Amino acid sequence: MMSEMPGGFRPPAAAIFITGFMGTGKSVVGRALAGRLGLQWVDTDEIVQARAALPITEIFARHGEEHFRELETAALREALAGPARVISTGGGVLLREENRALMGQAGPVVCLTASADEILRRVGADDTRPLLRRPDPKAAIERLLAERASCYAAADCQVETTGLSVDEVAERVQEVLAGDPRAVYFAGRPLVVPVSVPGAEYQVSIGLGLLGMLGELVPPRQRGVRAALVSSEPIAALYADTVLEALSAAGWDVTQVTVPDGEAAKSLEVYGSVCEQMAAAGLDRGGCVFALGGGVVGDLAGFAAATYMRGVELVHLPTSLLAQVDSSIGGKTAVDLGAGKNLVGAFHQPRAVVADVSTLQTLPPPELRSGLGEVIKHACCFDAQMFGFLGTDRDRVLGIDVSATAYLVARNCQIKAGVVEQDPTEQGLRAVLNYGHTVGHALERAAGEWELRHGEVVGIGMVAESRVAAWLGRSDEETSRRQEELIAAYGLPTRAQGVDPDRARQALRRDKKIVAGRLRMPLVSEIGSFEIVEDVPLEMVERGLDSVLA
Amino acid sequence: MMSEMPGGFRPPAAAIFITGFMGTGKSVVGRALAGRLGLQWVDTDEIVQARAALPITEIFARHGEEHFRELETAALREALAGPARVISTGGGVLLREENRALMGQAGPVVCLTASADEILRRVGADDTRPLLRRPDPKAAIERLLAERASCYAAADCQVETTGLSVDEVAERVQEVLAGDPRAVYFAGRPLVVPVSVPGAEYQVSIGLGLLGMLGELVPPRQRGVRAALVSSEPIAALYADTVLEALSAAGWDVTQVTVPDGEAAKSLEVYGSVCEQMAAAGLDRGGCVFALGGGVVGDLAGFAAATYMRGVELVHLPTSLLAQVDSSIGGKTAVDLGAGKNLVGAFHQPRAVVADVSTLQTLPPPELRSGLGEVIKHACCFDAQMFGFLGTDRDRVLGIDVSATAYLVARNCQIKAGVVEQDPTEQGLRAVLNYGHTVGHALERAAGEWELRHGEVVGIGMVAESRVAAWLGRSDEETSRRQEELIAAYGLPTRAQGVDPDRARQALRRDKKIVAGRLRMPLVSEIGSFEIVEDVPLEMVERGLDSVLA
Repeated sequence: MMSEMPGGFRPPAAAIFITGFMGTGKSVVGRALAGRLGLQWVDTDEIVQARAALPITEIFARHGEEHFRELETAALREALAGPARVISTGGGVLLREENRALMGQAGPVVCLTASADEILRRVGADDTRPLLRRPDPKAAIERLLAERASCYAAADCQVETTGLSVDEVAERVQEVLAGDPRAVYFAGRPLVVPVSVPGAEYQVSIGLGLLGMLGELVPPRQRGVRAALVSSEPIAALYADTVLEALSAAGWDVTQVTVPDGEAAKSLEVYGSVCEQMAAAGLDRGGCVFALGGGVVGDLAGFAAATYMRGVELVHLPTSLLAQVDSSIGGKTAVDLGAGKNLVGAFHQPRAVVADVSTLQTLPPPELRSGLGEVIKHACCFDAQMFGFLGTDRDRVLGIDVSATAYLVARNCQIKAGVVEQDPTEQGLRAVLNYGHTVGHALERAAGEWELRHGEVVGIGMVAESRVAAWLGRSDEETSRRQEELIAAYGLPTRAQGVDPDRARQALRRDKKIVAGRLRMPLVSEIGSFEIVEDVPLEMVERGLDSVLA
Repeated sequence: MMSEMPGGFRPPAAAIFITGFMGTGKSVVGRALAGRLGLQWVDTDEIVQARAALPITEIFARHGEEHFRELETAALREALAGPARVISTGGGVLLREENRALMGQAGPVVCLTASADEILRRVGADDTRPLLRRPDPKAAIERLLAERASCYAAADCQVETTGLSVDEVAERVQEVLAGDPRAVYFAGRPLVVPVSVPGAEYQVSIGLGLLGMLGELVPPRQRGVRAALVSSEPIAALYADTVLEALSAAGWDVTQVTVPDGEAAKSLEVYGSVCEQMAAAGLDRGGCVFALGGGVVGDLAGFAAATYMRGVELVHLPTSLLAQVDSSIGGKTAVDLGAGKNLVGAFHQPRAVVADVSTLQTLPPPELRSGLGEVIKHACCFDAQMFGFLGTDRDRVLGIDVSATAYLVARNCQIKAGVVEQDPTEQGLRAVLNYGHTVGHALERAAGEWELRHGEVVGIGMVAESRVAAWLGRSDEETSRRQEELIAAYGLPTRAQGVDPDRARQALRRDKKIVAGRLRMPLVSEIGSFEIVEDVPLEMVERGLDSVLA
């Protein structure tokens, strides 16, 4: 069932390689490109020289080319061990089969080219290069270019540099990369996920530094310029200035509304105060609410936008992973009552969602993990490739590597949007997003509302429910074990420490989905696929719950 | 523009006449029918006997038939002077041209028939009847029946009574009347106005005693039986028991939520309290809110229904004229902020509206007049026939005559529904309902919020704006004068006594619709038709305002 969503983003490359003949600008262009993309940059020649503690000419002179090539391959491995980056390599790196395999697996290889005259002009003054000390350097260059032509042709793309400045070349490389599906965010442009639900079409833009580009990303105003920027105190301190500046530059007249941090902001009192401040600022029916923050601010400001003057426009600027991959998409807004969370709210689709992944770099680790719980859930239900990426690229993910993060946010938005498009007001299908939630909710209620984070109980719930699937013969133990391992690999608990077993079992038995001792719930059949099982016996779910109670 | 809405109800008859030969049951059936319809009943023979202080046989004997017929016509006029009623007449009433004209104008004439044998059987024991003292009474009956056949054929319908009980005949008369457009509510069944907006179809049921029949009128529950009955203290005291009993009998599990009387109930605090009480009662997403009261309760309970668990079902039980003809239709819900009225709210269409016109009988006269302001506005813009009825039948309207009231509520619901269907979320067309509101709002703001009722300022606003239409050549002075006369006839002010002229002019000049000194506003071109005029000069509206400032 829906194992693949349409137009899926592919996992990003770990690196962009810039190679080419001497004098084509491998190093300077690589560095400029890294600057443009907000990535680190390394040069394998520099690693080689540092490790050997000798200039390259000396390595060639004393130990021969073969030894240099060994050092170069080691440098390539070292460069690839870190976060995603731009890697400039020596001009001969593609000569070796081993290097070509390493590079091809890691990411796109860009080969810079230039005419022999241009090369000679650029490097003519460099008397450390042995080639240039020959009697006819141009002929020597031409001969070597011809020898290496087939090897350079193995690169993913060629970029001609003759007559261009470094910056012009870097821009051209960026353009070429935009077409490579592995490059994901490397191209430096926002990734875009379109969302289409009845009565609303909008885009989620995902990328680095997008808050500073809001003027371009938010669709033109149709009716007004008055806006309210709603955010919590800590988030406002970090990003409000950037947002206010970008919106002012685009002609908006913005009132800043700051609410308390945390779930306490989702009260009717704070909601009323937000609306009163919007009224005091003169927002009319043509106004717009910008919700800058995590799920709490999105829910609160979204409900204000849904109801102020019976509905004004809303733009979500999610700053937490959970908000970027989940809560900012789908139009759900709510505040809490004394009697429970999210008891009043509305469906209100935003006019745009702008997810600036740089905001995730300031996210407290527990919040990051909580968001990753949802990401893992989406991977289990919908996308085996993303599941694999989460396993192989854990360090990049936890390190908030731009490209890995942009990929995950974009892909999860796409999955969430796909579900929402098929069930905009939560009549049925959206129930699939409740994988892990039957056991998870029981744990949440038994633990008391604030002891375990939502992402944590859902992780534990998935472990329990994956076992239920295996016991029912809907899946197998290996599939269950792989889910548990991935959840653990991200530092999420797989057992409910300290939760009272009797209270958890009681909470489970009060689940409203139980009809005649059976439950309708989504189960993962194999990684990346789920099915809605209509008649899961309650005792089987209780056994699953017992298995995760410490 | 939209001078006629589809399927318009016609103004109701003033009476139902029951006539027929002796022994067909004119009196007993008339009385039974009146009981079924909640109407008064009179018998012209009884009036004649009372006025003459003689039995009918004596009148015939002493003064002759011609004198009796004079008395009978006078009795007919006397019977028609009161509120709508069922009128039983003597068997010869249709012989006179004058009587036929009076009756044909006032309402449907039902002629009861029976076989000669049946008539003889029914009246055989009555020796006061001269006819039966003849040698062959059956032959005499048959001769007289034949003589009168053409006269009885002039009735609107015949109902054969042979072999039927009084109650069976009354029921058959009721069925026959249901097909007569003048009968309106006389048929004793709810009038039904269907409403169809995107995503919602529902019915407005209008009639007498409907609160006691809720079980039949509210569509079957799809998902739950939990409900909340929200009403204000005085309304709950009058009607809550009836509603609770009817809903319990239909299987609903109802929690009663009582809110303070008046606009003060439309606060976020009261809204929160209503939602908390719904949560405490265990209402889930399959729950239903019944809003019993006027516009305030409808707005408040409607907003609670729109937002509780992101939306539960709503049934409006409007008890004021304004709510029955206007606010319960269209899906607008709201509460007030400190900064102004109706500043937060939602569009939420009800699942059903049940307007029990008997609740209007307890309505304070100022509230009745306020509702009539909207009715007059609808008549001016959409329905010349209703405008005429309001003029000719003022006493029945102000007397809350069942049939007149049911007609007005049904017809106004139909008009409001027609506008709402074309503009469910108030994007444009619904602006036509703002006739009288440009000047009206300026007066409202200048007067302070509670000094003038909304219906009152709208009445004054219509007087002013009707003059603007005439000055602009969009209408004429006669059309303006007729509107002013009708407004005055219903005890609504036509001048803004005690409003500070400068404040009113300032308030008008702050109208948000003003663009470059001109306004887009609806104007009545002739009674029953309006046009949206795009460029009304502000100074013309100011002149209209000045003309109603005392």
